[in-house]
Amino acid sequence: MARIVMKFGGTSVADLDRIRAAAAHIKRETDAGNQVAVVVSAMAGQTNQLVEWTRQASPIHDAREYDTVVSSGEQVTSGLLAIVLQSMGVDARSWQGWQIPIRTNNAHGAARIEDIDPTTLIERFEMGQVAVVSGFQGLGPDNRVATLGRGGSDTSAVAIAAAIEADRCDIYTDVDGVYTTDPRIEPKAARLARVTFEEMLEMASLGAKVLQVRSVELAMVHGVRLFVRSSFDDPHGAGAGSQSNMPGTLICDEDEIVEKQVVTGIAYTRDEAQISLRRLPDVPGVSASIFGPLAEANINVDMIVQGASDDLSKTDLTFTVPSGDVETALSVLADARDQIRYEDVQSDGGLVKVSVIGIGMRSHAGVAATAFRALAEKGINIRAITTSEIKFSVLIGADYTELAVRTLHSVYDLDNR
Amino acid sequence: MARIVMKFGGTSVADLDRIRAAAAHIKRETDAGNQVAVVVSAMAGQTNQLVEWTRQASPIHDAREYDTVVSSGEQVTSGLLAIVLQSMGVDARSWQGWQIPIRTNNAHGAARIEDIDPTTLIERFEMGQVAVVSGFQGLGPDNRVATLGRGGSDTSAVAIAAAIEADRCDIYTDVDGVYTTDPRIEPKAARLARVTFEEMLEMASLGAKVLQVRSVELAMVHGVRLFVRSSFDDPHGAGAGSQSNMPGTLICDEDEIVEKQVVTGIAYTRDEAQISLRRLPDVPGVSASIFGPLAEANINVDMIVQGASDDLSKTDLTFTVPSGDVETALSVLADARDQIRYEDVQSDGGLVKVSVIGIGMRSHAGVAATAFRALAEKGINIRAITTSEIKFSVLIGADYTELAVRTLHSVYDLDNR
Repeated sequence: MARIVMKFGGTSVADLDRIRAAAAHIKRETDAGNQVAVVVSAMAGQTNQLVEWTRQASPIHDAREYDTVVSSGEQVTSGLLAIVLQSMGVDARSWQGWQIPIRTNNAHGAARIEDIDPTTLIERFEMGQVAVVSGFQGLGPDNRVATLGRGGSDTSAVAIAAAIEADRCDIYTDVDGVYTTDPRIEPKAARLARVTFEEMLEMASLGAKVLQVRSVELAMVHGVRLFVRSSFDDPHGAGAGSQSNMPGTLICDEDEIVEKQVVTGIAYTRDEAQISLRRLPDVPGVSASIFGPLAEANINVDMIVQGASDDLSKTDLTFTVPSGDVETALSVLADARDQIRYEDVQSDGGLVKVSVIGIGMRSHAGVAATAFRALAEKGINIRAITTSEIKFSVLIGADYTELAVRTLHSVYDLDNR
Repeated sequence: MARIVMKFGGTSVADLDRIRAAAAHIKRETDAGNQVAVVVSAMAGQTNQLVEWTRQASPIHDAREYDTVVSSGEQVTSGLLAIVLQSMGVDARSWQGWQIPIRTNNAHGAARIEDIDPTTLIERFEMGQVAVVSGFQGLGPDNRVATLGRGGSDTSAVAIAAAIEADRCDIYTDVDGVYTTDPRIEPKAARLARVTFEEMLEMASLGAKVLQVRSVELAMVHGVRLFVRSSFDDPHGAGAGSQSNMPGTLICDEDEIVEKQVVTGIAYTRDEAQISLRRLPDVPGVSASIFGPLAEANINVDMIVQGASDDLSKTDLTFTVPSGDVETALSVLADARDQIRYEDVQSDGGLVKVSVIGIGMRSHAGVAATAFRALAEKGINIRAITTSEIKFSVLIGADYTELAVRTLHSVYDLDNR
């Protein structure tokens, strides 16, 4: 017997047929004697409809009322899934965030979970009852529903898994796991059987859409093993009852991975833009004078490269921002020109960041050099480089995205996984 | 300054345009310095969609989960209306039943309100804030949302009006008041300026759809003055700020009505069926042996007529049930034949009950006789008659519905109101 959390995303509960399929997956687990808490998203499309209504009500609106409207989507799914489970002979009960309660901070629309009282859920497990919990929401200190922001149901699932000390948290989605890269670009991409939290965190941050970044962070901190699998698989298929036989990707601690790869995957983020400030005074505090105002404007600055200028008392500084933020960034920089004292500013869109991720890089030298050489051989110009312990990223022209991804996938031998 | 409750039904909040119109009515009242609690239904069609989903999930389902799903409709409206009000500069906040709380009993799907804590709402009034309350729902003793049954938003509005000691409760709907009869049958039907609780209760029970029966009962018990008016009127029209000038119908105590009419209105209910049991033993307990089993089968028995049979030791008994219940009723009676010992049973559908209502009947004799004479002159055969203090009803063939309604409307001089 195990205690598990099963999370179903919007496409996995899109209509009554999909909800019945989800219920069949759940029944398989309860039939195997497992204690189950289910976390559900809104039916696909519902959240968009609700968000659109709040926008029509007023383009600028109170986040508390937005939360009241939008959280109703998950409420509907939780009730419907409980009804379907009951009709299949599975004892089930729906739970909203305010009932458990799942306590959050007061940041309506982007709240963080602060505390989950597991008492009621565990009592119900002892009675053999499945808890169907609305994801994406909790109860704020103002006694109002607070939503966690888009994709927050993953975070709900992990937080509940941590609170009830679940053996694992299964994330049912419309893909059957995490891949070495995007299969739409590289058909040879292979599903990873296991990947570490750290690697998954980098992949999620770098555009792999399987899991929300915060949910991976939370899983890593609390040691919640995540298993990503498809809700479109046959619920009664080969994997029934035993996680190890199911197709999917386990996201876990490094020590659970016996055969470590140097490189695990290739990720990319489109729509990057580069902004360069020319001939700044090379004095302490110049970085703060640039990035302070950008942060205040809520602009996410990424790859920062500082280079020498011709004049040794001056420096050049280049960084990337999402394409959509270029205009705002340039306007912020123009306003701060008197403080920053740059001589010229240039911007360049149409860029993409391609990243190579692998926990094995920690102990292997020369991993990045292999990439630089391979990209150079294909004539791909690298505009900027950043590295961290377990990944490095290169900024290149968007036209080269597919070529770069395939080249790197091949050079690190991921084609044959 | 007055403290008022404003209730908007489904067609009055059917889309964002209608919600904006409702908000304009509310702003008129707050601009006039009134304290306002708003009670909203789900957007027209939403509740049907949610009910249909629960039916698709399983035809037989847990009322607690039904409530979780269906109550989301009002939640959405409350949030959207609060956003629209805020965008118009009106301080507003949405409230769900569990937040106030509105405590109900445990009869999920058809719960009764037991207690409303007015403290928070009144605190917010003092701060100049409008409370936008989700109708149709409260919090059951099991800490779950409990709905009041279809049309329950009227009841929510009256219960809140009683709890906050409102000066009146305005029911905004898609008609502009209560009429002497159905204007689709009698174009000379006139809007009543005032009607007593007792009369309204009879009208609502007898098929006038303007208000839910329970809400009228509750208003009568707590002395909540109800004002039925149209949300489709110009919010800035002649009636602004002052209830007495608005088109609509005030439902109030008898002593608020100076000029009492003998007859106030003509109501009718279609789809009645008559069941006759022939030659029963005329002994004590025979009624109980018939109506006990029918009540257990949840069949609503109405007009009961007991007549003499040829054989003096026997009696005939005739009663009406809704057409849809005839088959079940006959089956129940067949099962109980050994106890009841009737010799024959007959049933007849296609009947209609036409009722004449007026508080003045208490002090006027011969009111019913006028009707019987008028109907006889038109050749309308009366199948059964029931009377109460302030109304009488006749059962006739459905083909005569329009003729009977118009004849009675005319004979009691309602055409010239």
